[in-house]
Amino acid sequence: MTQPDFDEVIDRIGTHCSKWDDMQGAYGVCPDEGGLAMWVADMDFRPPRSVQRAVEDAARHGVYGYPGSNAPYHEAIAWWMEHRHGWKIDQGWILTASGLVNGVAMALDAYTQPGDGVIVMSPVYHAFGRVIRAAGRELVELPLAIRDGGYRMDWSRWETMLNGSERMLILCSPHNPGGRVWTEEELRDVADFCTRHDLILVSDDIHADLVMPGHRHRMIATVVPEIRDRLVTLTAATKTFNIAGAHIGNAIIADDDLRARFKAALMARGVSPGFLGMDMVAAAYSPEGAAWVDALVDYLDGNRRLFDDGVNAIPGVTSMPLQATYLSWVDFSGTGMSTAEFTARVEKSARIAANHGTSFGVGGDSFLRFNLATPRTRVVEAVARLQDAFADLQ
Amino acid sequence: MTQPDFDEVIDRIGTHCSKWDDMQGAYGVCPDEGGLAMWVADMDFRPPRSVQRAVEDAARHGVYGYPGSNAPYHEAIAWWMEHRHGWKIDQGWILTASGLVNGVAMALDAYTQPGDGVIVMSPVYHAFGRVIRAAGRELVELPLAIRDGGYRMDWSRWETMLNGSERMLILCSPHNPGGRVWTEEELRDVADFCTRHDLILVSDDIHADLVMPGHRHRMIATVVPEIRDRLVTLTAATKTFNIAGAHIGNAIIADDDLRARFKAALMARGVSPGFLGMDMVAAAYSPEGAAWVDALVDYLDGNRRLFDDGVNAIPGVTSMPLQATYLSWVDFSGTGMSTAEFTARVEKSARIAANHGTSFGVGGDSFLRFNLATPRTRVVEAVARLQDAFADLQ
Repeated sequence: MTQPDFDEVIDRIGTHCSKWDDMQGAYGVCPDEGGLAMWVADMDFRPPRSVQRAVEDAARHGVYGYPGSNAPYHEAIAWWMEHRHGWKIDQGWILTASGLVNGVAMALDAYTQPGDGVIVMSPVYHAFGRVIRAAGRELVELPLAIRDGGYRMDWSRWETMLNGSERMLILCSPHNPGGRVWTEEELRDVADFCTRHDLILVSDDIHADLVMPGHRHRMIATVVPEIRDRLVTLTAATKTFNIAGAHIGNAIIADDDLRARFKAALMARGVSPGFLGMDMVAAAYSPEGAAWVDALVDYLDGNRRLFDDGVNAIPGVTSMPLQATYLSWVDFSGTGMSTAEFTARVEKSARIAANHGTSFGVGGDSFLRFNLATPRTRVVEAVARLQDAFADLQ
Repeated sequence: MTQPDFDEVIDRIGTHCSKWDDMQGAYGVCPDEGGLAMWVADMDFRPPRSVQRAVEDAARHGVYGYPGSNAPYHEAIAWWMEHRHGWKIDQGWILTASGLVNGVAMALDAYTQPGDGVIVMSPVYHAFGRVIRAAGRELVELPLAIRDGGYRMDWSRWETMLNGSERMLILCSPHNPGGRVWTEEELRDVADFCTRHDLILVSDDIHADLVMPGHRHRMIATVVPEIRDRLVTLTAATKTFNIAGAHIGNAIIADDDLRARFKAALMARGVSPGFLGMDMVAAAYSPEGAAWVDALVDYLDGNRRLFDDGVNAIPGVTSMPLQATYLSWVDFSGTGMSTAEFTARVEKSARIAANHGTSFGVGGDSFLRFNLATPRTRVVEAVARLQDAFADLQ
């Protein structure tokens, strides 16, 4: 494999990408005036050559009709799960959704009714709450505790917070935006809780491959295999390989009945994969893709250290230690500033678009989420601007 | 525009396309042994250069992240509707689904409840019934009558067939598989029927651009503008330009309340467009695309005449006059053969995969649907094989 050049600055402005082209509308930060896009969770990198080649090959062939069955796609997923995550799956367990958010929506559709409670651990990926509410389900937010600067599950408190209407728990593993890699013990606690309260467990493992050195992600199915009759694991190559635009995600469901219900939901909503997604995933989940991910994680870890050192040097500003993901969750509460004030400094003075913590639910108000998956020069620039924007605190 | 070469035979075998690669599994017709794929409704042609260029440009850029807002896409749809169909729409009326089947599903989700009756005019595109049933709605089939060899609406009979539980009518316009272009009078009758029975009207106009010389398709919104408060028009560039794999379709909805409900369904099911579809549509709905469609329709008309002459020369075999679409609906009832026998002759003797009429619902049993959107040499070959397979009838 040619060593990927993550330092290359690729201009995405004007490509109809959300991260750069929608930034001004969403945050008032103008990309043409040096604004930095650190919000939407995609990367400013090209995927491995194998993936780009798959797109080029399709482009060249030129007939873009209905996609059919795609054995290499299913084989590649099974290979990746076994070789990268120690999880031996049956290819027949794999169902294909139109991305992870659609996968969550199909799980809600398949296993819950309007009015049912659906549990998330807040703060958490904002799309969960959006889809849960849009589907007329009750969003039940169990607030994560903070210990040693990172998020912890808070079972003794959470046990008192249910009212019996809950039917599902959506686990974000690793956790977005906190960057936690849940331990085996924590995953066992989640499984116990779901069993005790008879909940379907939807585990969103989309960040499973983006784990920093010193940590190890475990697929919950490998830790607590006995919960297979209530477990839906959502995975995707889209986050790992920066191909979110391919709109493809996988539900891996070992239990026949659960799988049949999910499949029926896909059928009822007319959801099936497009022509490029499966070929891109097959090209990504490969030895070449694996080497690329190793190089990527190393690069992201460098960005993370640089960013942490820089923002934590600002009095009252603290980033949560990042065990996984490329999304830094930064707490501004120590500055004593209102959410409006620290946000204005970041957007107007530093000209950086970062996700507002409020959108992640309970516990997010004093935070902003910064996307570090960009060439290092931009991270250096962001740190300098943030230090400048809060220079009066020094 | 370079004149498109529809005569070029492009090998699609092994590209994970449904039409050629799934044929053996579905029909036992082997592509490697000369089998002809005349089933799945896509074309064996490349799209206009402008569309292929859009895919090539994206491939080359190489960052395939989340797509954002795309003004040229919305502008192109509005331009096409006005210039090709005389329909002035507001760009704000456009919602984007993941293809037409997903669009139908979202309409069912938005406007009906489980148990509600949903009307189709049978025989009709098989995916309607599949999605209606999967969503737990009641499929209400109103059988089309045959007059002068073509389908006609049968209002006097249909008025007696409803039970009051019906909430929606799905119109296929032009009609697939019958190839009818509905007249203004027929469209007015549909609107009256929907008004009288308080039905939401979902008009699937996916074949609107593929209309044979001598016929003119009308968007129902331009014929009966007063039904806008119950009308959802589904359109797509995917059929016209052979880009079904892009999985993108449009719901054009003038009524604010209907549009809000459709949008809420998209949100609840986590449906949004992928990274290439919008750029492909924008490139397709253009003057270059328009010239390409004119050339395409001319070519398809030639294939149609050749095919009609050939199959109608077989005693007892009759193709329905094709006013639109590239899908020839062929009736074998005059042969006196059972469905099993004429189908076996087509698949085993002629080695042609054509859609079974039974899958289109009531009235389809004696038919097969042949896809003529393929280089002419293949149509010539298909005709020769069919004449041979039924030579004993001469």
